[in-house]
Amino acid sequence: MKTLPGFRDLFPEDFARRRYLTGLWRDTARRYGFVEFDGPTLESAELYRKKNSGGEILGQLYEFTDKGDRTVALRPEVTPTLARMVASKHRDYPKPIRWFNVGTCFRYERQQRGRLREFLQFNCDLVGDATSAADAEVVALLIDLLRSFGLGPEDFAIRLSDRSAWHDFLTLHGVEHDHAGEFLNIVDKMEKMPFEKTEELLAPFGIPQATIQEFISTGRIPALDPLLADLEARGLRAYVRPDLGVVRGLAYYTGVVFEAFALQGNLRAIAGGGRYDRLLADLSDGLADLPAVGFGVGDAVLLELINEIPAAKSLEASYLKSEPPLQVYLVIADESHRSNALALAQQLRVTGWRVGFPLGQEKVGKQFGTAETLGASHAVVIGAEWPNVKVKRLSDRMEQELDHATLAIWLEEHGAAVS
Amino acid sequence: MKTLPGFRDLFPEDFARRRYLTGLWRDTARRYGFVEFDGPTLESAELYRKKNSGGEILGQLYEFTDKGDRTVALRPEVTPTLARMVASKHRDYPKPIRWFNVGTCFRYERQQRGRLREFLQFNCDLVGDATSAADAEVVALLIDLLRSFGLGPEDFAIRLSDRSAWHDFLTLHGVEHDHAGEFLNIVDKMEKMPFEKTEELLAPFGIPQATIQEFISTGRIPALDPLLADLEARGLRAYVRPDLGVVRGLAYYTGVVFEAFALQGNLRAIAGGGRYDRLLADLSDGLADLPAVGFGVGDAVLLELINEIPAAKSLEASYLKSEPPLQVYLVIADESHRSNALALAQQLRVTGWRVGFPLGQEKVGKQFGTAETLGASHAVVIGAEWPNVKVKRLSDRMEQELDHATLAIWLEEHGAAVS
Repeated sequence: MKTLPGFRDLFPEDFARRRYLTGLWRDTARRYGFVEFDGPTLESAELYRKKNSGGEILGQLYEFTDKGDRTVALRPEVTPTLARMVASKHRDYPKPIRWFNVGTCFRYERQQRGRLREFLQFNCDLVGDATSAADAEVVALLIDLLRSFGLGPEDFAIRLSDRSAWHDFLTLHGVEHDHAGEFLNIVDKMEKMPFEKTEELLAPFGIPQATIQEFISTGRIPALDPLLADLEARGLRAYVRPDLGVVRGLAYYTGVVFEAFALQGNLRAIAGGGRYDRLLADLSDGLADLPAVGFGVGDAVLLELINEIPAAKSLEASYLKSEPPLQVYLVIADESHRSNALALAQQLRVTGWRVGFPLGQEKVGKQFGTAETLGASHAVVIGAEWPNVKVKRLSDRMEQELDHATLAIWLEEHGAAVS
Repeated sequence: MKTLPGFRDLFPEDFARRRYLTGLWRDTARRYGFVEFDGPTLESAELYRKKNSGGEILGQLYEFTDKGDRTVALRPEVTPTLARMVASKHRDYPKPIRWFNVGTCFRYERQQRGRLREFLQFNCDLVGDATSAADAEVVALLIDLLRSFGLGPEDFAIRLSDRSAWHDFLTLHGVEHDHAGEFLNIVDKMEKMPFEKTEELLAPFGIPQATIQEFISTGRIPALDPLLADLEARGLRAYVRPDLGVVRGLAYYTGVVFEAFALQGNLRAIAGGGRYDRLLADLSDGLADLPAVGFGVGDAVLLELINEIPAAKSLEASYLKSEPPLQVYLVIADESHRSNALALAQQLRVTGWRVGFPLGQEKVGKQFGTAETLGASHAVVIGAEWPNVKVKRLSDRMEQELDHATLAIWLEEHGAAVS
């Protein structure tokens, strides 16, 4: 029996990396005053069908009929859930609302290059403030997030754009706003699409690809000026690049849009986001007409990037080394003292130590081997010396005999920190 | 738009409780040397249909056909996934394997008394050791887990039983082992079922209910003796009660079974588990023939219990109070210093502080109000005194003026701890 294609088993060594990732996601968000929320994994499929929330996501929906005859879907992203939740209770919260989520999402994508069908996503959203000061908070958070993994300005950049510049462009070329979504979707895919295919798709708009490319390379985005000034004041200007080529695929963005992308190796997008000032009103039939800005990061690309950048990899390695399964191992040298070992294990564990011992009779040498395999810093030999025990520091075999009743205090003074 | 029936929105105040719960779940498991794993949310439905893994769970499966024509199911429990993972890679890990999981599970139950269709579950499993020393580790972990929430021996007890005692009983009454599962399912439901209904179900076995009840009240469980002695040595004997009435509903248990239940108010089951020595072999077609013991706890009952027990509630309250959204709030008294405030916010956040400030021009009094609402311990007034700032401790309005460059150090010495 195997996992379904596109799904992952996270063995403990994989989960340790996830713990590292989600720990830094949460720490960074909280440093910006964001608080965590979560919604259901399963929602009414209707939530994703409502005007403006869909885009290409709809075609990849894990959708089915439940035993109560409801059309339901595994969430493909968290923003519609956020919008629903904020719309239902926003009067209870002072604005702006700063919420983040770490949650699993599902997309039935065609199997290619190991694309996942279940993935973990980190979302940060700031709701109730339409100014560029809010945009700056969210972009700065994303920058600090990537920096916390040991990534620097030579490793990633944030490409910033603003849909208002594109709306001006479309007005200039006589395209109606109703078709803006469709048009921007083509621009979004342009970099990866064959020239002829793009020409074909652009034909109904009557705008040649060359005109678009010229606009991207020479156009200005004046709407970004306050955002850039704000990031400059924070010392983060070096991380961002105005770039009209970024439009983002999702239909619901209304203003600033941005994309973090890797500057080394395969130039992937690492994260993306933007302003969606109308989504909440649309999803709540006008009940909650609140502007919002946010971004999302997936786990897979970030883990891949960490693997490629030595500074990031070594930061991760030192975290993983600092989190061994055990801190203390009780070596039972004499089975007649097993009860004493059990009592001591209990006492140390209640104090907060991660403690192991053999479940059955084993040779002392084998027990020391287990202690080292499980990463314990200290072994405590329980045997003839009882009520005294011998403590051994495994790094240098430094040894000391002491009363078992004073062990917890001794460890706190000499050992690794309590978890 | 609402959640589907049986699904929950976790607003930040709800998520804070979840964080408290999962934090203690993880801490306790790690003190016992358990490491975290996770599997996919969606599995092949076949995994739950395989011999012995099902029971009543099968009727409540969230099952559907995906776009690739596979019969898939949202996981109703994690044990079959664990068994699949261990079977596929157990040679890579020294035995015993100690793994835990915090994961969301799904059951399509009839809507009653707020039963949930998506719930969070904590599972701990010890694989590769068939002795009662392993049983004791897992039962002790469960006891320490409940104690970590401030629950004492007057609040809960662990009822311990062993299916071997029931197998002896069945042999004595001439019932074949193949029918043991069916029989034990009736015993499991007996407490809640009308007398006549039970009689009817027992008829094919030819054992009157009175005989069963007499066995439950007078029968001995000698197989439990070593487990009880082990728990006695740990000082945990007062938390457990041998009780043949506990048999557990799941078909795959083979030896010791146990249930934590509340001693106050509504006498609910809080957690349950047991030994399943054949499940891994069954699920892996004999590839991994490993004994195992484990338990699961759901979030809903535990949260309910905390609400009812004052000592547990006050422990939770002090945790929730210790985790406010903000630690420091920058009051911008003069808009011309906004850039300085931004730079200072950046500096403090990178140091690890949770920092907020107003995104637009606001009256100073309102800013102080926001600082208090968001739980900041200190407000830092940025204005005419720049490069100096005024730091106010909000609990007693103690005020001090200092150079902004020394603020981070000053806060570390005088303020709340860095997150």
